Amino acid sequence: MLSFEQASERWREPLENRMKEAMKDHGFLEEMAIYHLETGGKRVRGLVPLWLVANMGGSGRAALDVGAAFELFHNGTLVHDDLQDDDELRRGQPTIWKRWGAPQAINLGDAFYFFATDCLESPGVPDGLAKVAGRAMAAVVGGQTLEFQMQLPASDPASVPPSIDSFNRMARGKTGALFGACMEGAAMCQGVRETTSFKAWGEQIGLLFQVQDDYLDLVGDKGRERAGSDLAEGKISYPVAWTISHAPNNISTRLEAIVRTPRRDTSNAMIDEAMELLEKGGGLEATKQYLLNESKSLSSVSISGYLPGFVERILKPVAHAL
Amino acid sequence: MLSFEQASERWREPLENRMKEAMKDHGFLEEMAIYHLETGGKRVRGLVPLWLVANMGGSGRAALDVGAAFELFHNGTLVHDDLQDDDELRRGQPTIWKRWGAPQAINLGDAFYFFATDCLESPGVPDGLAKVAGRAMAAVVGGQTLEFQMQLPASDPASVPPSIDSFNRMARGKTGALFGACMEGAAMCQGVRETTSFKAWGEQIGLLFQVQDDYLDLVGDKGRERAGSDLAEGKISYPVAWTISHAPNNISTRLEAIVRTPRRDTSNAMIDEAMELLEKGGGLEATKQYLLNESKSLSSVSISGYLPGFVERILKPVAHAL
Repeated sequence: MLSFEQASERWREPLENRMKEAMKDHGFLEEMAIYHLETGGKRVRGLVPLWLVANMGGSGRAALDVGAAFELFHNGTLVHDDLQDDDELRRGQPTIWKRWGAPQAINLGDAFYFFATDCLESPGVPDGLAKVAGRAMAAVVGGQTLEFQMQLPASDPASVPPSIDSFNRMARGKTGALFGACMEGAAMCQGVRETTSFKAWGEQIGLLFQVQDDYLDLVGDKGRERAGSDLAEGKISYPVAWTISHAPNNISTRLEAIVRTPRRDTSNAMIDEAMELLEKGGGLEATKQYLLNESKSLSSVSISGYLPGFVERILKPVAHAL
Repeated sequence: MLSFEQASERWREPLENRMKEAMKDHGFLEEMAIYHLETGGKRVRGLVPLWLVANMGGSGRAALDVGAAFELFHNGTLVHDDLQDDDELRRGQPTIWKRWGAPQAINLGDAFYFFATDCLESPGVPDGLAKVAGRAMAAVVGGQTLEFQMQLPASDPASVPPSIDSFNRMARGKTGALFGACMEGAAMCQGVRETTSFKAWGEQIGLLFQVQDDYLDLVGDKGRERAGSDLAEGKISYPVAWTISHAPNNISTRLEAIVRTPRRDTSNAMIDEAMELLEKGGGLEATKQYLLNESKSLSSVSISGYLPGFVERILKPVAHAL
């Protein structure tokens, strides 16, 4: 069984080349796409299909096409996300909208989707995989849509209460769906006919990844100005949604008020207060328990044997706080 | 042979239903999608495949899936366009970004693409059609990208000179590619193996449609405040690109300066002046000749016999000025 590092060493370069092939001869779109991809990334969604197929005893071109497609889909969402969230930097580099304007960022995100489609229409990619990918992407967009609805004031007719149920639906779409499709797609490449368990495992690990990222924002040791930045941005994270749904009224109401305060009006004192509310309201502890329980549950499924160390890898950034 | 009106009468409702089926159970995305589609539209890209297949003696489910897909792709681009161009109204109704904000407009445009993909993955849709559609959409996005590059000042490293060559490349992507794929897709549904001529005819009629729209902006009789609005917006239309490429320096330089003036600084007197420059520089006459020649050329190809009256229909809004 290969480790993620071994899989990455073997396929990182072919994966980059396959993505570049899909972007080729697209003029300025290609230039922007290469700039964006060069900001970095571990290419997890691209490598997982290759890694899984290899550890199931397979090989071949199809998994490379599938991995490249999922990685391109993902990067399309990143380019659009940066614009939607008004983020000016991605891994220290100006984001596409910041560098070339919002219209070109919309165009590049769109283009990544069609570059991805093209990879999926390669010979050897199993029938039905493009449908699986398209439905997953519709679910990703649905999750993004719900995320913005959860940030609206309750008086807005489009608002959705920021409960833990909404969070789960949102994250299952936004982060779970594409991981689910990565796993399902890889299984299809290996000729597996009943892929439900692969899809479910992928969705669950996507959720784990999301909740880990939320937890990291609160317990990360990257310096004080980083901790709690999601709170300032008004993000409805797992700890926030859990606390709003389960803590006594005085805690949940105040927490919601802080999270809903516009970024520019959110003082450091308010972030400190929100951190205390998450602690007192049980949200921090609940998040920790979620991560411990879900990682155990994921590891107990036989599929996890094909991706040795994957669950641990996802939890590594927050391992010190578990 | 059915006319467009007869085709529209027969398939408009099934087409709307097929699109709605693809959007079903997508929560708030479905709500926004229905709102957007209800602002209107003639569904030309959706009906053309159905119309062409019927007049070639075919029928069946596949053309409905294909028509719905192309119409959904097109509407995804419209939702993104409105945001990119800062347009607040579409056929008198607030645009998606105006009503629900830019992030949700990005999401809805994205979602339309994946609803379209889903239609193309229906049983009975010919192999290879999804690839044709995906490549066409990449070309559409490429055209949009080029359009923004042509509006940049020459000092910007990403700028592209607003010449007639750039215009042709831009419009062949932005408007031609999807019409080309509509025709090619319909031919594939009918089992045609050599589809190049269908694609080429579709691209050419897409260009005709674009140039007609550009001409209409100058010769439309919908009241003074409408004529020349593209000039105020800085759009590089066919008449503008032609004049910049072919007119004497004093005319082309001044025209380019007016077109590049920000919308808010463009006075009515400047628009009047630009109209005169287009007249004096030959751009108006060249556009008229283009429309006359291209429509003759399109009508002379046997494919046009399957779509009776289509070319005339496209030219109808500007017929009074030809």
